Amino acid sequence: MSERLIQWQSLFDFVRRVMTRMGVPVEGSRHIADNLVLSNLRGIDSHGVARLPWYVTGIKEGYILPKAIPKVVRESNALASVDGGNGPGQVAGAFAMELAISKAKEEGIGLVGVYNSNHYGFAGYYPLMALSHNLIGISMTNAWPLAVPTFGRNATFGTNPIAIAVPAGDQKPWVLDMATSVVTIGRLEVYDRMGDEIPVGWALDEDGHTTRNPREVLDSVYGGSGAGGVLPLGGEGELHGGHKGYGLAIMVDILCGVLTGANFGPSVMFYENGKYKFPNTGHIFAALDPVYFIGLQSFKQRMDEYLVLLKNSEKAEGESRIFVHGEKEYEENEHRGQNGVPLDPPTTDGLKKLSRELDEPILFMD
Amino acid sequence: MSERLIQWQSLFDFVRRVMTRMGVPVEGSRHIADNLVLSNLRGIDSHGVARLPWYVTGIKEGYILPKAIPKVVRESNALASVDGGNGPGQVAGAFAMELAISKAKEEGIGLVGVYNSNHYGFAGYYPLMALSHNLIGISMTNAWPLAVPTFGRNATFGTNPIAIAVPAGDQKPWVLDMATSVVTIGRLEVYDRMGDEIPVGWALDEDGHTTRNPREVLDSVYGGSGAGGVLPLGGEGELHGGHKGYGLAIMVDILCGVLTGANFGPSVMFYENGKYKFPNTGHIFAALDPVYFIGLQSFKQRMDEYLVLLKNSEKAEGESRIFVHGEKEYEENEHRGQNGVPLDPPTTDGLKKLSRELDEPILFMD
Repeated sequence: MSERLIQWQSLFDFVRRVMTRMGVPVEGSRHIADNLVLSNLRGIDSHGVARLPWYVTGIKEGYILPKAIPKVVRESNALASVDGGNGPGQVAGAFAMELAISKAKEEGIGLVGVYNSNHYGFAGYYPLMALSHNLIGISMTNAWPLAVPTFGRNATFGTNPIAIAVPAGDQKPWVLDMATSVVTIGRLEVYDRMGDEIPVGWALDEDGHTTRNPREVLDSVYGGSGAGGVLPLGGEGELHGGHKGYGLAIMVDILCGVLTGANFGPSVMFYENGKYKFPNTGHIFAALDPVYFIGLQSFKQRMDEYLVLLKNSEKAEGESRIFVHGEKEYEENEHRGQNGVPLDPPTTDGLKKLSRELDEPILFMD
Repeated sequence: MSERLIQWQSLFDFVRRVMTRMGVPVEGSRHIADNLVLSNLRGIDSHGVARLPWYVTGIKEGYILPKAIPKVVRESNALASVDGGNGPGQVAGAFAMELAISKAKEEGIGLVGVYNSNHYGFAGYYPLMALSHNLIGISMTNAWPLAVPTFGRNATFGTNPIAIAVPAGDQKPWVLDMATSVVTIGRLEVYDRMGDEIPVGWALDEDGHTTRNPREVLDSVYGGSGAGGVLPLGGEGELHGGHKGYGLAIMVDILCGVLTGANFGPSVMFYENGKYKFPNTGHIFAALDPVYFIGLQSFKQRMDEYLVLLKNSEKAEGESRIFVHGEKEYEENEHRGQNGVPLDPPTTDGLKKLSRELDEPILFMD
């Protein structure tokens, strides 16, 4: 499969125009484009522009309302509850994160819960917004059920990510953006496309046994049988802490779903019983100001000190490098920002198809 | 080894008297006793009264100041920074959690960071304090370096736990209390005492290779060589998400250590270069009020609904039960509350020795 290199600016412009054409207001279209293209730039192609056709489908099928305007329904100085109006997740997400940031600037902390939302793209996008304000940013979301509880066999909750971005001084910010499952479903899709077996301990078949066949898992979780799915971080059973990953996923779902008023568990679906419906996805956004603790300059210096210490820590025999979180993504971002974003043929085809359907010129492809 | 069953009230009374005798004020002694005995009641014997001799040693060696009174050094409506004065971790912890709770009652959220503290016992204790106020409680702490970064070989940070307690309605509260490593060091000690090998994927030897010999790991992490240690949740390398557990541990350390002004990483030690010193351990406590989101009654109903759904979810072939977090501990608590707390001979011996040394009668043992 030959990959194409596209300049990110062209991708950004295309996504923005497609979303505007679909009825999303200008500012919201910008956030969607920013979210998708930044994911590609950071090397997370599973959450990049490959998702654009999904969002267009969502709008066409009526479970993403393009013109929805997020509304604050309740708030205190530090908290807010936001109704996403069943619009694009990125629109509600950026609105809510900006609100959390403005509250953190006043009160030192801001925490905003969102319900009636949709897939919000890559989770790290929102915490990254906090960095230019010298704040720590946090985000979580629940999602389509793909993961199985410890000792269970059914996909009962999402791969529910946790993302946090922390400013540093001379070092790059520290950015953790992780699914609470062993792997994301995107990794299974990659193995499936390559015709490879997946490692033992990633996923379960419909009887609740470890499987090495990614197709089997994908068929069941997307086929709606609800049986089989990916394992929580820590793997199968309790021996290696699978109950911990299961716990983290439920923690995310309690905060994003049960607390906010969104759906939770197996109900976070946009397609059920042969019909599309609002998934009522939920998210949490938070920002925290170091000024109220050790102080900003001191905090940044101490972050630098810790990050350098970790990178310089002695390597295991046979290993040459210890990474800190976000480091690989910043390097990829720099590289792809200069050289272009590689798109695989299915993604390229998907974007070309959209261009034809919407009569929206796609200038960068023949 | 024959175990003895002791009524929890007797244990509580003994710990409280010992701590008061060591100079800890009455209220603080009560919190230490409550923390240790509740851990035993919930079945977490590694953090129970077996720790009492350690705390006495800490006071004698001067790195736990028994009379320290925690002080608020900075605060907003929702945040506070607390100096623990190098006193017992439970004293600073209970003070800070109560502060987080009172702030959450006013502002909907309270978050308190503590520095200059010591080992604070079992992490779940503090979130549990929030439940009677109908709040969600959260706590984290950094700790003595025992865990190894992905691709590393040195114990660079603690098993840094995350604990969260969430009120429910008819169901028991949901309580997650987890180390961010695959296992705690206490688990290795249990295998070592039994003369058993540990499973592959729990810990590394001093070259950074998986080892099945728990003694080897214990010798190096407590011997101060800094080499070897337990693996982060997700295990060795990145294939099963070891970098995620590593990330969660660093997240906890950034919030508890870098942010609060406490030590972080390998510096969280009470013994270094042949001398005792203040470890300057750091903790985070938070409380959150569901009233600002879906509302309390609705939240509790939805929690019940989710917990029942998880428990009733279909089991993997060969499994008979899916647990929700905290469930095992509540069952154990009920059982041990009626039948007594089992103590193993080393723990019994340790308490008897303390009793003789301090001339503090230990009424429940011959």
